[in-house]
Amino acid sequence: MSAAMTPLSAETLERLRLASTATLCTQLFKRGLRNVFLQGVARLTHAGANLVGPAYTLRNIPSREDLDQLDVLGDPEHPQRKSIETVPPGHVLVIDCRGERGAACAGNILITRLMVRGVAGLVADGPVRDSAEIAQMDIPVYCAGGSAPLNLVKHHAADANVPIGCGGVAVYPGDVMVGDAEGVVAIPRSLADEVARDAAEQESLEAFVLERIAGGAALPGTYPPNAATRSAFEIWRKQKRS
Amino acid sequence: MSAAMTPLSAETLERLRLASTATLCTQLFKRGLRNVFLQGVARLTHAGANLVGPAYTLRNIPSREDLDQLDVLGDPEHPQRKSIETVPPGHVLVIDCRGERGAACAGNILITRLMVRGVAGLVADGPVRDSAEIAQMDIPVYCAGGSAPLNLVKHHAADANVPIGCGGVAVYPGDVMVGDAEGVVAIPRSLADEVARDAAEQESLEAFVLERIAGGAALPGTYPPNAATRSAFEIWRKQKRS
Amino acid sequence: MSAAMTPLSAETLERLRLASTATLCTQLFKRGLRNVFLQGVARLTHAGANLVGPAYTLRNIPSREDLDQLDVLGDPEHPQRKSIETVPPGHVLVIDCRGERGAACAGNILITRLMVRGVAGLVADGPVRDSAEIAQMDIPVYCAGGSAPLNLVKHHAADANVPIGCGGVAVYPGDVMVGDAEGVVAIPRSLADEVARDAAEQESLEAFVLERIAGGAALPGTYPPNAATRSAFEIWRKQKRS
Amino acid sequence: MSAAMTPLSAETLERLRLASTATLCTQLFKRGLRNVFLQGVARLTHAGANLVGPAYTLRNIPSREDLDQLDVLGDPEHPQRKSIETVPPGHVLVIDCRGERGAACAGNILITRLMVRGVAGLVADGPVRDSAEIAQMDIPVYCAGGSAPLNLVKHHAADANVPIGCGGVAVYPGDVMVGDAEGVVAIPRSLADEVARDAAEQESLEAFVLERIAGGAALPGTYPPNAATRSAFEIWRKQKRS
Amino acid sequence: MSAAMTPLSAETLERLRLASTATLCTQLFKRGLRNVFLQGVARLTHAGANLVGPAYTLRNIPSREDLDQLDVLGDPEHPQRKSIETVPPGHVLVIDCRGERGAACAGNILITRLMVRGVAGLVADGPVRDSAEIAQMDIPVYCAGGSAPLNLVKHHAADANVPIGCGGVAVYPGDVMVGDAEGVVAIPRSLADEVARDAAEQESLEAFVLERIAGGAALPGTYPPNAATRSAFEIWRKQKRS
Amino acid sequence: MSAAMTPLSAETLERLRLASTATLCTQLFKRGLRNVFLQGVARLTHAGANLVGPAYTLRNIPSREDLDQLDVLGDPEHPQRKSIETVPPGHVLVIDCRGERGAACAGNILITRLMVRGVAGLVADGPVRDSAEIAQMDIPVYCAGGSAPLNLVKHHAADANVPIGCGGVAVYPGDVMVGDAEGVVAIPRSLADEVARDAAEQESLEAFVLERIAGGAALPGTYPPNAATRSAFEIWRKQKRS
Repeated sequence: MSAAMTPLSAETLERLRLASTATLCTQLFKRGLRNVFLQGVARLTHAGANLVGPAYTLRNIPSREDLDQLDVLGDPEHPQRKSIETVPPGHVLVIDCRGERGAACAGNILITRLMVRGVAGLVADGPVRDSAEIAQMDIPVYCAGGSAPLNLVKHHAADANVPIGCGGVAVYPGDVMVGDAEGVVAIPRSLADEVARDAAEQESLEAFVLERIAGGAALPGTYPPNAATRSAFEIWRKQKRS
Repeated sequence: MSAAMTPLSAETLERLRLASTATLCTQLFKRGLRNVFLQGVARLTHAGANLVGPAYTLRNIPSREDLDQLDVLGDPEHPQRKSIETVPPGHVLVIDCRGERGAACAGNILITRLMVRGVAGLVADGPVRDSAEIAQMDIPVYCAGGSAPLNLVKHHAADANVPIGCGGVAVYPGDVMVGDAEGVVAIPRSLADEVARDAAEQESLEAFVLERIAGGAALPGTYPPNAATRSAFEIWRKQKRS
Repeated sequence: MSAAMTPLSAETLERLRLASTATLCTQLFKRGLRNVFLQGVARLTHAGANLVGPAYTLRNIPSREDLDQLDVLGDPEHPQRKSIETVPPGHVLVIDCRGERGAACAGNILITRLMVRGVAGLVADGPVRDSAEIAQMDIPVYCAGGSAPLNLVKHHAADANVPIGCGGVAVYPGDVMVGDAEGVVAIPRSLADEVARDAAEQESLEAFVLERIAGGAALPGTYPPNAATRSAFEIWRKQKRS
Repeated sequence: MSAAMTPLSAETLERLRLASTATLCTQLFKRGLRNVFLQGVARLTHAGANLVGPAYTLRNIPSREDLDQLDVLGDPEHPQRKSIETVPPGHVLVIDCRGERGAACAGNILITRLMVRGVAGLVADGPVRDSAEIAQMDIPVYCAGGSAPLNLVKHHAADANVPIGCGGVAVYPGDVMVGDAEGVVAIPRSLADEVARDAAEQESLEAFVLERIAGGAALPGTYPPNAATRSAFEIWRKQKRS
Repeated sequence: MSAAMTPLSAETLERLRLASTATLCTQLFKRGLRNVFLQGVARLTHAGANLVGPAYTLRNIPSREDLDQLDVLGDPEHPQRKSIETVPPGHVLVIDCRGERGAACAGNILITRLMVRGVAGLVADGPVRDSAEIAQMDIPVYCAGGSAPLNLVKHHAADANVPIGCGGVAVYPGDVMVGDAEGVVAIPRSLADEVARDAAEQESLEAFVLERIAGGAALPGTYPPNAATRSAFEIWRKQKRS
Repeated sequence: MSAAMTPLSAETLERLRLASTATLCTQLFKRGLRNVFLQGVARLTHAGANLVGPAYTLRNIPSREDLDQLDVLGDPEHPQRKSIETVPPGHVLVIDCRGERGAACAGNILITRLMVRGVAGLVADGPVRDSAEIAQMDIPVYCAGGSAPLNLVKHHAADANVPIGCGGVAVYPGDVMVGDAEGVVAIPRSLADEVARDAAEQESLEAFVLERIAGGAALPGTYPPNAATRSAFEIWRKQKRS
């Protein structure tokens, strides 16, 4: 098993469930990564815990009328259908729709199957169909809203578990997808542990800063914090823990 | 009366009220129609029964400062105002806004008038104004959200009840507009009966398939259904009906 | 103090709080102003009274990797941070994001500071981060939704309180920003009093018209109102006031 | 014959052939018209005299697979084919393509027919096919470049000689279309004579101004000209004419 | 060797070299294929014979700062560099750039290598760099113009010879790419022979039709041709051949 | 005089005149700058030596009908007109048009004035008017093509010589603008000398590499060059110089 595929530690998973995508973007920015937040991808399902899981990908190319008729969907090897059955439980199915909004990449039956199989969630830079029903489901779905036409109108499912682009961001199989109310960030697998750790630290500090600002403190010295604020934070943190 | 203008049968109307736009798109795709779902048009009003009705159209072109001043709206022959008064009850007013989002095509007074007149609904590929009030009204309105500028800023109402484009889709007077939470599909008048019939059949089958998938069935053989699944469906259906 | 900076009268403020942006756009259209409603800017926070206040501006240009690293935010003279501290209470901070959706222009800490300082609200043609938290705050925020990446990914804060473009509209310091559920209109400071006065009058008339239309009146003669309708309105208004 | 359809005078035609679209836009701006230059429409054919002529329009809506198959083109009443035969000699065929770049609105056979018939030119906000051949023809063609797919892929020709939008500008039958190397302006028929006259005057003045600027004069006082420059212009003009 | 990879016959190659992309689009439209012409892809190099050859593909995804630094280009296995060395002579390298215009997909050194190796041409839905030099080269290059930034700014070369999208069109390895002055069409490999044959026939007929139209014939009966015109064509063709 | 404003050395100027924007982008990429090439900005004027010079900026915001009428252009303090007179000889006037294509930012009279004054060139992310005449002028102009409407239709000139965005790139007064046939790159003033030096070195090496590739060398070991190729280059260079 390659390093990229080592299961994420329980600690990292827990930290990422509590982190905001804003904080994660800042941590990745500190490491020189500026393009990690998926554009045009929003949470469809009702709020809950963060989406967290390694990426399993599906790649679409434009459809062609002679190849992409309804009967292809009956083939168990059709990459869209097969990916639904093979994405490992706990993983996130990430679909490259080329940002195309004119057709859905999945509907309520396929997403129900993902949910039953224990898949962590779905991320796509295109819409789903049956979006009102899906919005009520108990599996996080991030996409470009709802659209009624079936995938074959625009998409040919080409292959699965290859590097893709989604929402303008590179997604490699095994990258850690994290979603909150803001949207979805793709964390390179190799950085997941350290980013999760530092994000937790940053969020703790920012909770303190926010308390100060809400209490009337001005920005200078407080945000970003100077040495005095950092000292106050350490005291505050100890008190909170005790 | 031309065939296109024969009133829709009560059976077809009822079937379309229960069908989803996703299913209707699939039925039209089976008949070779790939571009039937309006892009950039979303439900503004709160959920209820599907919008269903034949299209009555209004066509806008870009406005011109010397022609499109406020006084033109006082002319009862102004096509926008006249269309509000002449769209037949039970029909859907479909407005071609060229996808322009910088001005509204109607506001709460005009839409109230449509509602009072018994019009089935409004579909436009541009925004409305007074959108918060309209969202609460008891008439389905599908549009490109809300925008405060009046129509004259961008639109000159040119004529009514001619073939138009709306949301990138051809809409002919008499085409059957169906809207649900996903958006709006335009069904050619000549196909309405058979599409309604087959959509009802498809939805019944998919309800069964969904039940199976929710119960743990894998996709192969279930979705799309093979002969065994179809047999099980027939039994299930008979039981449901009895 | 220049004329533009004379505080708005209490009467004008009150009228603007009650006016809709639709009505304000119509009043400005009557005066030859067609481009006053900000495109791509929507209310993020929950409904309440209208946003009203004079504009204080912040201007962003594209960021550059060598200049826009995290440490710049610690400088109290950094224009973004400084503008948060210097926008006068009762004013609206209006941020030029060039319509860029790939980075946030502010987050919950900065917006909390604006709220604590008594700033009237925030308007930006780019997203904010921590959008779910901000949506619950008690300060009106109008923006292009939520996005997790920090401002430095796309923006360099260049200067404050200069004329800017926001949502495709010119905004001069002191212009009166008014926001309702539809969005935001920028009223030139010199026109604020007369526009507020005439908007109040128009809204009163339209309330009457709406009542008539809801009661079954046809558009001709009612909307726009002819002499008879205007007379009826005057009587109605007197009765309402008495 | 309505006033709009009175033939243009030889004097106006000649003036418009010599005017630049830049000057014409300025003259229309002086009269309050800001949206008269077609966006996304460029000269395809090699330079020559200006395109000048009254508009005859053709309107396209999105195509539909069941209606828009090749056999429809054999019907002499098909609006695209019929418009080619009915646009009067000396007029300009203006085609509304909704800015769609994915299909051509005409090819070399149709445009040869226009040329043989003495039509003044073609203007479209979509591409043509056979663009390399057309670029060499002796009839001015302004369009959105070249694209190989036939019109039926995207367009259904709906009707002719109705008001349309083209390049985001309103074009009414009889409006005067003028094209130079920059592109195309639509002049309302009722303003054509005065705009042509004032444009000639403006161009004469600007030729003088340009001479001065090329000779080293600074902008202040020269452009726009003050009284002294205007006096010098009058002398210069008399000398040129004598 | 799969059928798709059987070399194209000399006859088909020759016919495609003489066919226009317009004619090829019409032939494919007759067979139900509407989306075969690449959008946003134009000929950069000076005119010559048509580009014709089977596709060999290269797929890009968005770049990531930690993976896509200059040193990767020194690896002979880097997919971009390797594809330049492995695309078979006589084939066309087709690059999926996701329509991204902010970085080049190749420059004059790589394209010189393609030329030296006998590759038939390059097609990309993104720009090249050194575009002025490349425009003078003796190998057909179709792309989205020129842009100076190197590929790594936007692209990570992911893999080669897989199905891709290019210019919004599906391109499978072995599909026949044909380019003329208008742009590029992708012909499914299985249809190449029959499309080439029927295109030659169509072009012959249209040459005759054009001659007639240029000679003053009206469209009805001539274009499309009725039985009489077709008879006249057959005589004309025999005379031409004799 | 600040460091940024020290005149560029003759050596740096000469090197930049000979460098391609492609090479300059690569040098800046090596230093971590990925967004330095202006998007949507192309050379309008006929080829010649590279454009090279420090930036002097002009900033536009959206126009407003009450402020931006023709008479404002007569004011010598109007920022557009004043900038034409104050940009120092040898500098490049860089205009922020917000990417707006619907109005020109300058015409032949203003650009003639720039030429007479010895200004190095004009760069704008919007069109010019009188573009055919300007294309023939002896001053490099880079812009978004031609468009006839005057600036006031869309632009209000706000101020000059402030940091701006142009073509999506940050441009600070004094930054070194370099343009070739590909387009324009903005080099931070502080990096100009080292980038110019390393670009010259890179271009020399690439000339050698291109010679090798044209002679039949394969990419591996040649491009990028390995140690052997670099040694051969050093010999080649010495021979060339002697």
